Amino acid sequence: MSERYDIAIVGSGPAGITAAVNATIRNKKVIVFGNKDLSKKLYKAPKIDNYIGFPGVTGKNLVKEFQNHLKEMDIEITEKKVDSIYNMGDYYSLMVNNEMYESKTLILATGVQFGKPFKGEKEFLGRGVGYCATCDAPLYKNKIVTIIGYNKEAVEEANYVSELASRVYFIPMFKNKHKLNDNIEIIKDVPIEIIGNTKVEKLLLKDTEIVTDGVFILRDSIAPDQLVPGIEIEGSHIKVNKNMETNLKGCYASGDCVGKPYQYLKSMGEGQVAALNAVSYIDNL
Amino acid sequence: MSERYDIAIVGSGPAGITAAVNATIRNKKVIVFGNKDLSKKLYKAPKIDNYIGFPGVTGKNLVKEFQNHLKEMDIEITEKKVDSIYNMGDYYSLMVNNEMYESKTLILATGVQFGKPFKGEKEFLGRGVGYCATCDAPLYKNKIVTIIGYNKEAVEEANYVSELASRVYFIPMFKNKHKLNDNIEIIKDVPIEIIGNTKVEKLLLKDTEIVTDGVFILRDSIAPDQLVPGIEIEGSHIKVNKNMETNLKGCYASGDCVGKPYQYLKSMGEGQVAALNAVSYIDNL
Repeated sequence: MSERYDIAIVGSGPAGITAAVNATIRNKKVIVFGNKDLSKKLYKAPKIDNYIGFPGVTGKNLVKEFQNHLKEMDIEITEKKVDSIYNMGDYYSLMVNNEMYESKTLILATGVQFGKPFKGEKEFLGRGVGYCATCDAPLYKNKIVTIIGYNKEAVEEANYVSELASRVYFIPMFKNKHKLNDNIEIIKDVPIEIIGNTKVEKLLLKDTEIVTDGVFILRDSIAPDQLVPGIEIEGSHIKVNKNMETNLKGCYASGDCVGKPYQYLKSMGEGQVAALNAVSYIDNL
Repeated sequence: MSERYDIAIVGSGPAGITAAVNATIRNKKVIVFGNKDLSKKLYKAPKIDNYIGFPGVTGKNLVKEFQNHLKEMDIEITEKKVDSIYNMGDYYSLMVNNEMYESKTLILATGVQFGKPFKGEKEFLGRGVGYCATCDAPLYKNKIVTIIGYNKEAVEEANYVSELASRVYFIPMFKNKHKLNDNIEIIKDVPIEIIGNTKVEKLLLKDTEIVTDGVFILRDSIAPDQLVPGIEIEGSHIKVNKNMETNLKGCYASGDCVGKPYQYLKSMGEGQVAALNAVSYIDNL
């Protein structure tokens, strides 16, 4: 079985990496799920004036400084997307495609997801709508699958599904070349609504509609209450106290996902507080 | 009269300077009270691993980076000690020796004061015990004054008082050469208790005792409820909500003075939140 980590951090933005650095200093066994560019939002920032010590730095250069810090401390980013997390009582199970990771504590630093769910998305969740195509692929053998993809990982998932499904539609929600298998049909249109009776039957788009058995929506981040069933939400943010504790024991959250202002230092301070409290929680286990 | 600032920041540590940078970016008229080395605690830190972007930096070098950032943004530190602050309803009055500053809002970033008050200190506050010798000097014309001094500013205050008082005792609580006037008597002993009846009569020390009319305790920082009468305290910290608002309208606090963990990024995140909320408070006035 997989080894059990002390702290699993979901997200590699300012909050996540600060949590990782602080937990590592305290000698905890840490895994960080995210990507090597750390944060798209940060990476693309043209000029940052309020990260003290780097006046007027570009996001790209600040990412480089952060990456260097992580390298100095031997902290690696695990470039995998966590699909769902289950509270197992005294530890958490993190599902990543068909792998499972275990951790004593959890720090959510997933950022905020911009954009609303599609019409019908919540209604048909688990009845044809899903967020991990690779996980559910076996259910769609010889069936029609539609993938609404927001990133290059979605392309990989589509390719995998296309080996099983009878037909795969891919709706790209990002600009980039897609190295999709030849048997995948690309549809350049805007999804509007997921329609069905007891389960998904159709996807309605702006200019057309598709008959489909399943719709996978592969966004950069999953809404926190879909990611961690049972977590308490306040408005559109994870509810935390001043120790960055959520309602679930051993589960902390920090950064944009816990509320405004959406600012780097605010997120980093919270990531630090989350990590230090997770550390003392572990030490008291 | 003095011009009115938008935001007066008390303290030039990580929380205070982050508040200053963020408020300046939002085009607010800011004054920061503190000192040019920013923070003694930071300056003296031998090695800092958790300020992301500067792995293993010395406190001294991080202070330099911070000073450079302030310089780039034309933010100056006013090297004066605020003695007391009064809530005037729609603005705050800050007393600095015999000067007065006015500000629409206040951000307290005073750090934590280590060490307990002396026995009798709270009891005789305003009845012979004070925190600003310069302010109260006229009351001690031809009287005996004792100064318990923690820094070089205390030496200056003692020299000023010695021009009026009949006798001045100086008890140095720090290691350094003291350029004290010749008529000041230095007592190298440890203060224990302030004694009196309706007002201060004596200072009891470890090895001796002094008959005195006044005792001025000139620490690096004043307890927040002595600095800002009426501010709500929780334990030994200023009580704030998640927006860093205190119980006083337009008064915010951040950094070590609002609670643990005493960490740079935590303080800076809070300084940022305090500043952004002060800005929106001003914009809504």
